[in-house]
Amino acid sequence: MNIREATEEDFDEIWPIFHEVVSAGDTYAYSQDTKKDQALNIWVKTPRKTFVVEESGNILGTYYIKTNQAGPGSHVCNCGYMVSSKARGKGLATAMCKHSQKIAKELGYKAMQFNFVASTNEGAIKLWDKLDFETVGMLPKAFNHPAKGYVDALVMYKWL
Amino acid sequence: MNIREATEEDFDEIWPIFHEVVSAGDTYAYSQDTKKDQALNIWVKTPRKTFVVEESGNILGTYYIKTNQAGPGSHVCNCGYMVSSKARGKGLATAMCKHSQKIAKELGYKAMQFNFVASTNEGAIKLWDKLDFETVGMLPKAFNHPAKGYVDALVMYKWL
Repeated sequence: MNIREATEEDFDEIWPIFHEVVSAGDTYAYSQDTKKDQALNIWVKTPRKTFVVEESGNILGTYYIKTNQAGPGSHVCNCGYMVSSKARGKGLATAMCKHSQKIAKELGYKAMQFNFVASTNEGAIKLWDKLDFETVGMLPKAFNHPAKGYVDALVMYKWL
Repeated sequence: MNIREATEEDFDEIWPIFHEVVSAGDTYAYSQDTKKDQALNIWVKTPRKTFVVEESGNILGTYYIKTNQAGPGSHVCNCGYMVSSKARGKGLATAMCKHSQKIAKELGYKAMQFNFVASTNEGAIKLWDKLDFETVGMLPKAFNHPAKGYVDALVMYKWL
């Protein structure tokens, strides 16, 4: 498993992962019908940096890191992680989250915040818990789950 | 006191209020040296709608409303309010917040969220409390206050 910074040229391989995750509508606060050019903007152009996880030359996962709030909030970063369904359960999310914390510190961030974790996304919550993220907020019925309707969303946070 | 939707032409009068509030660095997550064209983008162009409060033809306060998260989060809006130092203590923030809740419902939003309220901003917190916003999150040391250093930031929320 190799984690390296992404280039725009990687996006053809990132896109199927993004599309698979986002069209399901149960984890990310992006429109389920987000188009490829919008996704490129969201995932690669807007963030401060984007990374990919490769195995045997195939991209199996990806994450971005960006500043969560400007000005007085700019010491806190935000990350988003996606893993291809072909590669789940192999520790890619854990590896990316650890990698992102190292990168965050290198970039001078002091904390990392996840703004909007669907309370139904138990796998992610368990993982962030294990990596010492604290649930610091609970947004009542803030996530409109495609099957379960309005469910709570968590804010998770870690001082690095 | 009259609250009406803002036009880009109003920005010459909005800008001194924005600049005064943001350059103080103790309430909003914008860079203290935000320039006028950036402020126009942040406050008028990017949000869904922007309003101003007028008295005797002078703009004394302003607020924006926007969607807080896309896709599964798009039923929750976010607002920001600013009052000129010349007009504080006259109930403008209360009037704008009540107005924004009415507008939010007209636009189809089901909830309103303030993402990043400095815990030192006691006036605002007391006001949102009174207007039935609930503190649903506490972000440890997420706000870098110009005088007090890293202080907590609150997430406040109201189902409309």
